[in-house]
Amino acid sequence: MSEEKTIPIILITNDDGITAPGIRNLVEAVRELGQVVVVAPDKPQSGMGHAITIGVPLRLNKVEDMFDGVETWQTSGTPVDCVKLAVDKILHRKPDICLSGINHGANHSINVIYSGTMSAAMEASIESIPSIGFSLLDYRFEADFTAAKFYVHKIVESLLKTKMDKHLLLNVNFPAVPTEEIKGIKICKQAYAKYDEDFDERLDPHGKKYYWLTGEFVNFDKGDDTDVWALQNNYVSVVPVQFDLTNYALKKQLEKNWKINDI
Amino acid sequence: MSEEKTIPIILITNDDGITAPGIRNLVEAVRELGQVVVVAPDKPQSGMGHAITIGVPLRLNKVEDMFDGVETWQTSGTPVDCVKLAVDKILHRKPDICLSGINHGANHSINVIYSGTMSAAMEASIESIPSIGFSLLDYRFEADFTAAKFYVHKIVESLLKTKMDKHLLLNVNFPAVPTEEIKGIKICKQAYAKYDEDFDERLDPHGKKYYWLTGEFVNFDKGDDTDVWALQNNYVSVVPVQFDLTNYALKKQLEKNWKINDI
Repeated sequence: MSEEKTIPIILITNDDGITAPGIRNLVEAVRELGQVVVVAPDKPQSGMGHAITIGVPLRLNKVEDMFDGVETWQTSGTPVDCVKLAVDKILHRKPDICLSGINHGANHSINVIYSGTMSAAMEASIESIPSIGFSLLDYRFEADFTAAKFYVHKIVESLLKTKMDKHLLLNVNFPAVPTEEIKGIKICKQAYAKYDEDFDERLDPHGKKYYWLTGEFVNFDKGDDTDVWALQNNYVSVVPVQFDLTNYALKKQLEKNWKINDI
Repeated sequence: MSEEKTIPIILITNDDGITAPGIRNLVEAVRELGQVVVVAPDKPQSGMGHAITIGVPLRLNKVEDMFDGVETWQTSGTPVDCVKLAVDKILHRKPDICLSGINHGANHSINVIYSGTMSAAMEASIESIPSIGFSLLDYRFEADFTAAKFYVHKIVESLLKTKMDKHLLLNVNFPAVPTEEIKGIKICKQAYAKYDEDFDERLDPHGKKYYWLTGEFVNFDKGDDTDVWALQNNYVSVVPVQFDLTNYALKKQLEKNWKINDI
């Protein structure tokens, strides 16, 4: 009895847009591991979270000669739209894995909620496609992706050899240090952190106020089992993520104590 | 020893925009219960998920005579931006509760991920403000909010009397039936469901393709403990929600089986 070996299909997207160095590095890191198809936003879409495009239609165009020999598409939509378009309009079968990134900037802790990179990965996971979001703790365009590429290859190669859960979803962040300074990979939980908002108030040329969103990152989680700790200590952080947002502990508590139907 | 009784501050926002009937019904449902402050988007922002506005500045303007006697602001941002602006620029102290909605259309099951209504509520929860998103299973502008208003009042009144966890976050959905047909309130888990994408492909007047996002809702979760079940059986569904997305079961499994550092 012979088992047919099929080449894995690797769907790649991001939120920094198709021209960002991060996605090029991601393609280069995994192109030997399967048949890569890129479907990415035609412009930066950072901070889009799990936004989808409802009020306006979407464009989807094939791009030639972007990544040598790799089928490439750009869309006018959000990262989540890209995954939806890839699944419905581009790929002829479900991809074996979806990779998102490599994001320019951290997506550890609470950033997972705001991140277009992670939302694209989560959308794939909802679609029963094992999925990973990758981010580097350096937001600059000229960031050095050498170490990140090394670990992306290692992680994806390892996972493609195993039987992955169809909803597997990982949030992987890389410290911005050279490869030899990285101590290894650490499985972590999402640190409890938030941003303290501090809107920058300005006046436009007509004397009217406008506001730029800025904020200071505050980590409340002092444990050594979090992604923030791992990154501060030069580990690659891997947080397994889920899209069931039910708070089961609070559910139990409310079922017991909240006699709302008796009021 | 006397204890000063302060009037609760109730922050209200939504994702359908400040002129939607849903937010007016929400204000009317709770205005007797405290000092209401409305900070809502100046246009529809459905499906924006947890998007924040980074690339362009925001506008924030006071609106007069919108809701009789209620301090009201509109912003050019997303629902999450509204909560951030309210906390940083409008409110002089942390509100006692944040309410979002009432959304025109269901936010049960996987919709929690895409919903601007629920993302605004989640942002408040991250800010340590107890928070509730309300949605009615009727997307029409002329939807009947009578039953929803009755239950919103009941739920908020009950919670304001208790000591709420600072991260309390509830996803409340109402079936689109008259009050007398509602069987009560049910604490539920988020149903495992998804949308099967089906992009509607069209040609513009110049002969170029464009796509409208459409999709069919598919519920894989046949249990009687889900929000979808509760709503189908004419209960008000209440799902406790959390912003820690760590998949602890998968974390344990990976720690045990994934020898990635040995490879």
